[in-house]
Amino acid sequence: MGTVVACSTPFGSSGIAIVRISGDESHKITSLLINNSSKKNKHNSPTLFSLVDVDGFVYDEAVVNFLFGPNTYTGEDLVEINLHGNPVIIEKTIALCCSYGATAAPGGEFTKRAFLNGKMDMSQAESVASLISSKSILGAKLSYKNLRGSLLKNILAIKKNIVTTIGQIEFNLDISEEDLQPNLMSDSVKAIDVCVNTLHPAIESFDAVNILTAGATVVLAGPTNAGKSTLFNTLLKKDRAIVSEIAGTTRDVLENTINIEGVPCVLKDTAGIRKTKNVVEKIGVKKSNEEILSADLVLYLGPSGSVLSSENNNVIYVHNKMDLGKGKKEYDISISALTGENIYSLKKLILKKVTSEFSDHGFIITSQRQLFCLVSTKKQLVKAKNSLLNFSGLELVVEDLNAALTSLDEITNKTTKDDVLDSVFSSFCVGK
Amino acid sequence: MGTVVACSTPFGSSGIAIVRISGDESHKITSLLINNSSKKNKHNSPTLFSLVDVDGFVYDEAVVNFLFGPNTYTGEDLVEINLHGNPVIIEKTIALCCSYGATAAPGGEFTKRAFLNGKMDMSQAESVASLISSKSILGAKLSYKNLRGSLLKNILAIKKNIVTTIGQIEFNLDISEEDLQPNLMSDSVKAIDVCVNTLHPAIESFDAVNILTAGATVVLAGPTNAGKSTLFNTLLKKDRAIVSEIAGTTRDVLENTINIEGVPCVLKDTAGIRKTKNVVEKIGVKKSNEEILSADLVLYLGPSGSVLSSENNNVIYVHNKMDLGKGKKEYDISISALTGENIYSLKKLILKKVTSEFSDHGFIITSQRQLFCLVSTKKQLVKAKNSLLNFSGLELVVEDLNAALTSLDEITNKTTKDDVLDSVFSSFCVGK
Repeated sequence: MGTVVACSTPFGSSGIAIVRISGDESHKITSLLINNSSKKNKHNSPTLFSLVDVDGFVYDEAVVNFLFGPNTYTGEDLVEINLHGNPVIIEKTIALCCSYGATAAPGGEFTKRAFLNGKMDMSQAESVASLISSKSILGAKLSYKNLRGSLLKNILAIKKNIVTTIGQIEFNLDISEEDLQPNLMSDSVKAIDVCVNTLHPAIESFDAVNILTAGATVVLAGPTNAGKSTLFNTLLKKDRAIVSEIAGTTRDVLENTINIEGVPCVLKDTAGIRKTKNVVEKIGVKKSNEEILSADLVLYLGPSGSVLSSENNNVIYVHNKMDLGKGKKEYDISISALTGENIYSLKKLILKKVTSEFSDHGFIITSQRQLFCLVSTKKQLVKAKNSLLNFSGLELVVEDLNAALTSLDEITNKTTKDDVLDSVFSSFCVGK
Repeated sequence: MGTVVACSTPFGSSGIAIVRISGDESHKITSLLINNSSKKNKHNSPTLFSLVDVDGFVYDEAVVNFLFGPNTYTGEDLVEINLHGNPVIIEKTIALCCSYGATAAPGGEFTKRAFLNGKMDMSQAESVASLISSKSILGAKLSYKNLRGSLLKNILAIKKNIVTTIGQIEFNLDISEEDLQPNLMSDSVKAIDVCVNTLHPAIESFDAVNILTAGATVVLAGPTNAGKSTLFNTLLKKDRAIVSEIAGTTRDVLENTINIEGVPCVLKDTAGIRKTKNVVEKIGVKKSNEEILSADLVLYLGPSGSVLSSENNNVIYVHNKMDLGKGKKEYDISISALTGENIYSLKKLILKKVTSEFSDHGFIITSQRQLFCLVSTKKQLVKAKNSLLNFSGLELVVEDLNAALTSLDEITNKTTKDDVLDSVFSSFCVGK
């Protein structure tokens, strides 16, 4: 692996920016940058240096920290340069490093190297990404736990259980190819059940964890003039903790993120649903129905007695305009988007609905890849159990259990293929 | 001064972010944040710690660097926390610091404290701002020189000269209230001339330096269908080093920044100028004329023999569509925006024109405030010289010279009023 360089802080003007260089040549390249080949660098001792252009002209000063592998993030020699947060200075520094032999690091390269150099397993590397992108502090906490090995510990416990069971079955096969030892059947089924029961809540809670890390999508739906846009504005106005504003990707759906007690909710205001012959409006309604279907929660502002026609059952039936009269019993809540009445209760209800499935039982996964591995593991375990119960032959049971082990191993994978590596690390930001 | 906290890196997701805390309580507050009150912290020794929420839950880990005043940027006790670049983690950390007694630092607070604690003078503080905002690497280099005291050195040299002259005149006044000592007149005039001649190029080069730090505005003008928009696109396309894209503030003027050999040029494509009765189009043409007037350079794509009717004389007369026929001699350059012919030469010409006034004579100012101080100093010096030449009385000369000193002192000001402080530091980004 060659030496790579990247800016590890976001692009923009700021007090400080950090440029990181990792690899065998990192210290040598930095010495050229600070025009200081003679001095012996001490590990982890930040020192102020001038940054020098090829013409010998100083263009900035920076606090430079030389770090010696393997006691670094990447496991390689590493340098952190804290310079002034000016894009032209950052670009100049990276260009100089490249002219001295470094190459620009793609996204996730530093963590990829940490993984390849055995500083962390694949599940921990993914936790770094979810720690950085997590949209709530609870999501960050869960990601951090996995980064510190919580997921790994759970995986290893299940693995140990499966390996023991395989061992016992193989021991039985050695003694007698036909007869099943008295307790082996029940012990094995019990062991497999323990594994499945441990995996199950981790799989089931993925959506809930995903809401904490990526945010919940809450769609406002209902006929035109139901007060959807008023509610949209009221929800945004009353809650000042607007985290970001995303420009609408379609003409009809407005998006804004609000934060309810730390849980990010992407609010979407859809076009009112009504039968129409207008081609453009039809597209809008189709889009609304798609949003409703994929939402984590729908706030339906329909007339009394009407039911949202969608396969999505996560619906709060909202009686709006309570200032104009009482709502019927079939509504979940009565509010007035106009006066703001009961908006606080609505938010509490939204929060309850989107986080209802989540409870921290200590075994949490944070990526689709991890989910896929666990689902596949569970499937193989259930298959093994059925083979046992149906007396399909112990060889088959061992085969199924080994397949389960393979799926499970993929989570922490030490022998990952290049394409899996690429797909995991390409989602990282540059400089991590 | 209390203890302040801010994020010193831009807002956004990234590998690393830096939160800085400065003030007497900074170490104590950080100890609460990392739940580590017992351990003795060493100066400038970055160490990995867990960041702990009030509920004792770890939400991130960070490299924490404790620094002891006065050997810090602010001159006070300071802590730099390198955490994961996640906005919710950054906000959480700042909120925790505030709950432990810190207050959120406004823009420039850290540099303001460095100034107030005598770590730098006002001109150096301003250099930090121009170093961060500089749009070209040459601008950054010039800003850096002033940060390291280049401007201060020049100011002190002039100051010494004026003080000596005042001393000599006052000595003369002590001996004889009426008679001028033989050489005093010519010596004083000479000394004042030296000061004025030193100040003059610094004042004159301000616009050129400003182009290097803030960028040059280059406006494309000419009648409709002259090929302005084609040239605009060609200039943008051929030069891949597009630094930023600014959304048009008006309907009619398009803006994009290109970088010609490190000099940022904000290209503006204006509405074609023609006589019109349409009210909306009239507004567009008025806007175009304003842009032309305030431009650092105008590229005029007019028909043969026509002259740009504007008070702005910084014009390149461009003969476009050279692929369709030769241009007359009155043009500065012939190009084809369509085929790209001679675009490289046009860029060279733009560069030459916008940087023509700049030469680094070692005395550079980078802010409007500094310009104002120098202009005022020069005015007072010229007044003093005239008083001398007109025999208006030595007391008056001393008065003028003292006024010049006052203006000059304001650049490096140690006794600056609050409103000046606020106006200087409010332009800084948060976290510096």
